[in-house]
Amino acid sequence: MSNCDSLKWIAAEYHDLNGSHYDVLDKPPTAIDFSRLVHIGRPVLIKDSEVQGGTSRWTDEYLIGRMRDQSISIAATPTGRADAIASGRDGRLYFAEPHIDKMTMRTFLAALSADPSKNTSSGCGEVYYLQSQNGNLFTASYFDLSGDQDPSEFEPLREDVLSEIPWCSDALDKPPEAVNLWIGDSKSVTSIHSDPYENIYSVIRGAKHFTLLPPTEGWCLQERNYPHASYIRSQQTSQLELVPSSDMTPAVRWSSVLDPTASGALPPEAHPIHITVHAGETLYLPAGWWHYVRQSEVTIAINYWYDMESRGMSWVWLNFLRGLGEPPQGNEDGKQSP
Amino acid sequence: MSNCDSLKWIAAEYHDLNGSHYDVLDKPPTAIDFSRLVHIGRPVLIKDSEVQGGTSRWTDEYLIGRMRDQSISIAATPTGRADAIASGRDGRLYFAEPHIDKMTMRTFLAALSADPSKNTSSGCGEVYYLQSQNGNLFTASYFDLSGDQDPSEFEPLREDVLSEIPWCSDALDKPPEAVNLWIGDSKSVTSIHSDPYENIYSVIRGAKHFTLLPPTEGWCLQERNYPHASYIRSQQTSQLELVPSSDMTPAVRWSSVLDPTASGALPPEAHPIHITVHAGETLYLPAGWWHYVRQSEVTIAINYWYDMESRGMSWVWLNFLRGLGEPPQGNEDGKQSP
Ligand SMILES: O=C(O)CCC(=O)C(=O)O
Ligand SMILES: O=C(O)CCC(=O)C(=O)O
Repeated sequence: MSNCDSLKWIAAEYHDLNGSHYDVLDKPPTAIDFSRLVHIGRPVLIKDSEVQGGTSRWTDEYLIGRMRDQSISIAATPTGRADAIASGRDGRLYFAEPHIDKMTMRTFLAALSADPSKNTSSGCGEVYYLQSQNGNLFTASYFDLSGDQDPSEFEPLREDVLSEIPWCSDALDKPPEAVNLWIGDSKSVTSIHSDPYENIYSVIRGAKHFTLLPPTEGWCLQERNYPHASYIRSQQTSQLELVPSSDMTPAVRWSSVLDPTASGALPPEAHPIHITVHAGETLYLPAGWWHYVRQSEVTIAINYWYDMESRGMSWVWLNFLRGLGEPPQGNEDGKQSP
Repeated sequence: MSNCDSLKWIAAEYHDLNGSHYDVLDKPPTAIDFSRLVHIGRPVLIKDSEVQGGTSRWTDEYLIGRMRDQSISIAATPTGRADAIASGRDGRLYFAEPHIDKMTMRTFLAALSADPSKNTSSGCGEVYYLQSQNGNLFTASYFDLSGDQDPSEFEPLREDVLSEIPWCSDALDKPPEAVNLWIGDSKSVTSIHSDPYENIYSVIRGAKHFTLLPPTEGWCLQERNYPHASYIRSQQTSQLELVPSSDMTPAVRWSSVLDPTASGALPPEAHPIHITVHAGETLYLPAGWWHYVRQSEVTIAINYWYDMESRGMSWVWLNFLRGLGEPPQGNEDGKQSP
């Protein structure tokens, strides 16, 4: 039996046992309940997560009033797909990092709510997404050093936000590695990927549409090695151009499935789970689960990444499930440009 | 890459990450600590486990006095190896179940302490082991039905024994599936096997020597299918004879490694962990770990088996690690009789 057959066997057994079930809780779990849920490693939707703190006040006016002239980092792309596969001018496929524009909260929110049919201040149909994913609200050093050494662009909003989720920190016996603020609209899509983090994802306004695959179905996503590129704003035209990075920049292993919700994008062995997380709700997304994320209106969310347990088997399994050895090159298997 | 190569890759990665480390705790864990330990799935030795209750009183005299004429079930074998591979009179290898003799605690303990060089009441060099493994102290129905429907041969000893381990039941959110009393001496050996239970193993008197392999190294143990047989006491000679069961009795999948501590018995990829559990100490043996168990003197122990979590990945992994498909036949690969 080949390694590929093993992965198929595991995926089928896992699905036979677990189906597409996910728990829905009315209230947040206790720490010990959550510890058991982490061991099970299935998604859990928590209806009333009680983690919103002062974020219930977050109207546009409030956010603008608090943030004032503070400059914030916004991902800008021509397509709304940052950290995703895109074709370059040479017709090759690249893993494309967004351009980062600095602006005020007022400018950013105005761009989000602008009528997309007009050529607005957001600039020639560009898409903006606040998605910096670097612990833009809190990083691990906030917890190490009592916050003195953890500057944040969103400092004025911190007082409204829980810096950690009590039942999660207790269960995992550590503070989060990163707490991220996300603000975007229907034009932004997060391409399918997985993270080595236990993820507590809480929606404040709007709704997030998650398409999930268990770690066992990662082989359905056909990871490939793609050369790295970044969107750069041309000095002359002010337009974003996708510029390949130097050959020194390592290739990025990424799924070649651009839209797992498109019909025929996944093989029949894949069993995607669709979960919409509404304002006030929180999703527990276990480490290693694949996720593709969209929103149909202006949506604000905060997520908490906790390092997964690296002792024991979990880490080894996640690596095994991604397939042993290097994946094929993304530009060498007759794949069409997106 | 073949399935066999996958198993070797997983075992090597798992060992690189975890080594042969096991935690040693001075005090019992809290429920939430234990929940985290279950997720990690490595053995833990607890020095002062505080689970002994009234068992500290368990001298031979006390046990005999409490048990009086109560008849108890004792495994009898010619070799001290019950539930193990043994060769039959036809030269074939069998999975051999012990004969069960009924006797009083007094008779049993006298047989254990008798000088083995003399031909004592234990009967012509036979070996006795109290190892019934069926929840001889408490079964799950004790917890379902407040004990009314759970008769035990060891009823008079129950008041000395915790029916469950508080931090374990709290962590796993269920009572034990079985609580077993074990009494044996150096002549009894438990052959290497794994169980789908979280095991809390507590030594009351003497010491148990565990040889452990992680689930990832199960392929080193060469499981085979063996025909089933039982020791039966001949009416004529009163001797134990190994009698093959009917062809209807399913074959038993068992390791063909008879003594994993013997030099050369395991391939170099195996990393056995040796842990001696002394009186007063408790071992947490995670579900799926392979164990070979001995004692060098009269040893009394109680263990608590809790059903492992079947949701999520654990069950699928344990099955995968035992290899896909049927194992070879135990009598058809040129293996020598033990
Ligand atoms: O909200 C999004 O667009 C993506 C979220 C995500 O990928 C994450 O939380 O790991
Ligand atoms: O104590 C012994 O001899 C064996 C123990 C055992 O196999 C178990 O607890 O599962």
